[in-house]
Order: sequence, then C-alpha cells, then structure tokens
Amino acid sequence: MKTRPCAAGFVSLVGAGPGDPELLTRAALTRLRRADLVLFDALVSPETLALARRARRFPVGKRAGRPSMRQETINGLMIRAARRGQRVVRLKGGDPFVFGRGGEEALALRAAGVAFEVIPGVSASIAAPALAGIPVTHRGVASAFAVVSGHAASAYEPVLDSIRPGTMTLVLLMAVGAQQEIAAALVTRGWSPATPAALVFGASRDDGDTWIGTLAALIRGDGPRRVDHPGTLVIGEVVRLSAVIQDAAAAPAAQEAAQ
Amino acid sequence: MKTRPCAAGFVSLVGAGPGDPELLTRAALTRLRRADLVLFDALVSPETLALARRARRFPVGKRAGRPSMRQETINGLMIRAARRGQRVVRLKGGDPFVFGRGGEEALALRAAGVAFEVIPGVSASIAAPALAGIPVTHRGVASAFAVVSGHAASAYEPVLDSIRPGTMTLVLLMAVGAQQEIAAALVTRGWSPATPAALVFGASRDDGDTWIGTLAALIRGDGPRRVDHPGTLVIGEVVRLSAVIQDAAAAPAAQEAAQ
Repeated sequence: MKTRPCAAGFVSLVGAGPGDPELLTRAALTRLRRADLVLFDALVSPETLALARRARRFPVGKRAGRPSMRQETINGLMIRAARRGQRVVRLKGGDPFVFGRGGEEALALRAAGVAFEVIPGVSASIAAPALAGIPVTHRGVASAFAVVSGHAASAYEPVLDSIRPGTMTLVLLMAVGAQQEIAAALVTRGWSPATPAALVFGASRDDGDTWIGTLAALIRGDGPRRVDHPGTLVIGEVVRLSAVIQDAAAAPAAQEAAQ
Repeated sequence: MKTRPCAAGFVSLVGAGPGDPELLTRAALTRLRRADLVLFDALVSPETLALARRARRFPVGKRAGRPSMRQETINGLMIRAARRGQRVVRLKGGDPFVFGRGGEEALALRAAGVAFEVIPGVSASIAAPALAGIPVTHRGVASAFAVVSGHAASAYEPVLDSIRPGTMTLVLLMAVGAQQEIAAALVTRGWSPATPAALVFGASRDDGDTWIGTLAALIRGDGPRRVDHPGTLVIGEVVRLSAVIQDAAAAPAAQEAAQ
C-alpha cells in the first residue's frame, strides 16, 4: 500500500474486523504492535486490544448506555497525539469506512495537516453473514447486496424506499433494536412476509450465534434481543443456504493462534 | 472462529483480500502456511501465493483469455485432495462469498461430506474505494451502498432497475469492460450525468491507480481501459471525497513487512 506505515506523528485509521483477532489483517497487526496510542470503539474485542502491547489504550465509543465521545473530541485527541510525534491507531470495528465515521476523521486529519493512512478491515456486513453460512451473493439467488445502517429509522427508511422489494440481499448493521420496525417497514414496502431473515450476533466470537426466521417472525416479535453483541440482520433468499453451509462448517474445535 | 482450522482432510475457503499480502487476515496466513494444496483464482497476487511455502499451488481461474476451469472440475479437485487427507486452501480474491462462487463450493463440499470452513477476507468492494480515499458511506452524503457485479449486463441491469437513482453509493466489481454501458444504463434510468464516478485499478498494489470523472465522461469513452488489474467502479457523491482524503494519505514510502 502506498502509505507511510508506522511512522511517528502519524495516524492509522484501522479496521479491526468483526471481533476475532484472527480476522485482523497483517497490516492492522503491525500498526497495533507499534502504536503509542490506540483510540478504540466499543465494538473492538479485548483480545484485539491486547495486541497493542506498548500503547496507551483509550475507549472512545458508546458503552453501557453512556454516549460516545463527541466526534470533535476524538479528532482533537488524534491530532494532538500525532503532533506530539506519537504513532496513533484509531481502531474501529469492521471496516473504518462502513458506518465508522472514518471519512469524517480522515477529513479532520487532512484539515489539521496530519499525515494518515486507511487500513481496510474485514467488514461485518459481509463476514457476519459468511460466518453464519450465508453468502451475500449466490449465483441464481442474489446477484447484488446492499448494506444499510439499522440504527436509526431516519437513515434506513429512505434506503428501504429506494430498493425494489426482493431484488437483492439486504444487510442491516446494528439492527437488533429496530428488528421489528425494519421487518414491518419492508413488508409495508412490498417485501413478502415469508422472506427469510437472519440475525447474526458476535460473528467470529465463541459466544456468537445466529437466529434464522422470516420477516413475518420478526414482526411477531420472535427475534432475539441480545444486547451483548451488535446484531447483523440479513434479509433475502440467500439466508436459506445457511442451513446447509453452516451445519457443515460449525464443528467446534480448538482455536489455533496464527503466529 | 468455531472451525477446525488446518486439520488434514479439510478445505478452507479463504479470502485473499484485494492484492497486497498485508491485507491478508492472520487466519488466512495460517491456512496458507500449512496448506498442502492451494487452488487459486487469477486475482490472487504472486506475493500472496508465495506465503504457501509447502503447498502445491494450482491456478484454477480465468487467465489471459483462456476460460476458467469448470466449477465441477474445481469442486472435484478440492474433494479428492481432502479425501486423500490433504489440507486444501481454496484461495479467492477479496472475500469468498462476494461474487466468488464460494457458496457453490461450500454446497459441493457439504454434498460430498468434506469438512470445510469459510475465512472471510477484505472485500475489494469496500477496500478498493477506501484505498482510493473514497468511503462507501459518509454521514450526510451516503447512508448505504450496493455491490453489484459489472461483468455481465444480464446480471447488473436488473439490479440497476431496482435501485432509485442517486440514493446510495454503487460499487460495481469487474466493471472495466462494461464501464461505458453501465454509465449509459444508469443515466437512462435517471441518474444525473454529472454523478461522480471512479475507476479503481489494483487497489493496494504499487502499480494501482484511480481515475476520477463522471457518468457523462464514462459515456463519452474517457474512462481508462487497463486490463492488467480488475477495475472497481464506484458511483456516487462519496467519490468527491477522494480529492481530499487520498491526497493526504497517498505519500509514497517504503513498505514495511508485517512480521
């Protein structure tokens, strides 16, 4: 990658992947090991943070009902640390540019004249379905997928308005809280109540699991309400493949370290 | 991850990321290092393949005008090698479940009773824009993105029909050949000819580059026609951010090895 990795006075906007440190990229691992300061979101796992052995580690995300730090405050922390000559890692769950405000942080760093790089990560939008045995695309079933934030109706409703029902796989991130409203919004817009739906929690984590049902079941309130992991909602015929693919791949076994 | 990594007689469907081996996951690296047989696609870089030090490496993708191996042949190679007790890695560019036929291979392995796992990768659908300084989502600009294959009109036209113009970021993979037709199809469907568009080649590779223009420019034939790397076409207002974000991040420098 055409960047200046690991230099002092430099910020790396790094995607941490969906949780399991095995799904960190090698580039992310290098940045963590050499970081002086790691500013991390709530979705980043403790095992991942532990890899930043020599860094001060500072949570800046939403946690246990407390609001997240203001974006301007996070920007200020990054900029000041970089100006002091530190190697700063801004660590985000999944990929930094998928609902991670990575773009806003990049613009702030640019405006401040601080050098930075972007290290893409494994996005939960693709990996959470995959680890539950659901391919977001599958020949003859889905030839496209759309990724939407399920956090606020003001964000997802216009998107649901703009997609013709049943034409592609939908992936809604951070969708546990609004699962019932989202399913109802889709059926109102013409999606079949029988459309398969999956809620994936803690993909790649040992305590993760997957609920499989339909839009109708979500509307009835049958969906799970776990709050310990963010939930990824997957909607479309590809969900049916999970029963075959996941079953064969999910045999529990010891985890081996990558290095 | 709840899998049996690296066991003998086992197949790992592994995403190799967008090209630079630094964007491999740690899990992918482990599988490559221990593999007996690697079946790889054309999009996988030589540097990545070289990490599979003890494996026989066998290309099964499309190359230099020659058609790719038939899917049934690839499935048969995986299944026979696993039954002989080998550790098999099926290595795909990007993520195995994003237009990678990973789902079809998983179903074939399942039908044959061969144990397997899926290792998600950094998808070019998100990373190619990111490495060109384009966040696929950005507050106030795009609150969703859709990923489509740009390879065949029969696949992308129905998808373009089903998305209301200008409502989300579009990412079309393998879109170099049809760039003109895709842009025309979008304008015909009501997208503004002034909509920003980017063609990203070889994201994360030293010889990669990015063309920035508009749908109108693509229709005029102004887009680049490189054939040495697959091109990722990004359409939407987020493309404008590249001018600011990429400029600050693209200072060339020595690449450091991850480990």
